[in-house]
Amino acid sequence: MQYDIQQSTALLSRTPAMLDALLRGLPDAWTRVNEGPGTWSAYDIVGHLTHGERTEWIARARMIIESGETRTFERFDRLAQERESQGKTLGQLLDEFALLRSKNLDQVRAWNLEPRDLERRGRHPVFGPVTLGQLLATWAAHDLTHLHQLSRVMAHQYREAVGPWNVYLGVLQCSGHSR
Amino acid sequence: MQYDIQQSTALLSRTPAMLDALLRGLPDAWTRVNEGPGTWSAYDIVGHLTHGERTEWIARARMIIESGETRTFERFDRLAQERESQGKTLGQLLDEFALLRSKNLDQVRAWNLEPRDLERRGRHPVFGPVTLGQLLATWAAHDLTHLHQLSRVMAHQYREAVGPWNVYLGVLQCSGHSR
Repeated sequence: MQYDIQQSTALLSRTPAMLDALLRGLPDAWTRVNEGPGTWSAYDIVGHLTHGERTEWIARARMIIESGETRTFERFDRLAQERESQGKTLGQLLDEFALLRSKNLDQVRAWNLEPRDLERRGRHPVFGPVTLGQLLATWAAHDLTHLHQLSRVMAHQYREAVGPWNVYLGVLQCSGHSR
Repeated sequence: MQYDIQQSTALLSRTPAMLDALLRGLPDAWTRVNEGPGTWSAYDIVGHLTHGERTEWIARARMIIESGETRTFERFDRLAQERESQGKTLGQLLDEFALLRSKNLDQVRAWNLEPRDLERRGRHPVFGPVTLGQLLATWAAHDLTHLHQLSRVMAHQYREAVGPWNVYLGVLQCSGHSR
């Protein structure tokens, strides 16, 4: 199937409102807890998504458009949210995420990308050549991977509370799959 | 940790708005697709959640409150949404889900449950004795298990589009875990 950028932006534009509807005002017992040492809470996940909006996705897209394969992407800093979220409430992070995402989608629209632009290539530090279309699809799928993680982190808190039903709840059988 | 019913209702009350923010108006290429024959789309998942509101959770809670262990719960019909959703748009299902969920939470509040009520027992057709607290926790965790599934079903559509990034996206390594 032909990759359709409108399909990606339709999802990307909805993620902030979705996370807001789920997380704003939810008790800390859901949002500040994780799956154990070194794992992320809902708060950490929103911080990570916000960091990605600030430094990752648009910077990489711009690098492809402006420099093609002559420059290599910066590596993604997976721990940046620990610094950047400091002192912020979850509500502030949700506001920031929504604002940055909206600006970034404005930027994408301003580029007026044609189907052939999506074939343009950049250079990933690990994978080597990747296309602009793959980058934009990954931006959307990255939202979904963190929604998947978020549902798992939250469900983990109910591992005991659900009693015998734990065997029926697929999310409780998920051990996480990120590399 | 003591089970806290307020924690469950805080989540349960947010799920309809979250799904609405994510799914309403999203292209069918996200919402009407599944992971292959016999699997569910976003549309099917919302239909399943709506069916649960209509026939499952409150009926079981009421059975515990009124009859204790003397009656056994009906089995959950996991295919009911195929009948019940027929001819409905996703927007109609989202409206229906929100309305039923809201009414059901009103009913829970009207019961004015005390902590000791949450220890009351009913009879599950497979597990035998279960408590009201376990049922209510499972109602919330069931939302999360379908959010987990939803993110996976949607991400599946981008398995090819993300190119080499597929190895980094945990959701694409998830093979589903429901029984």
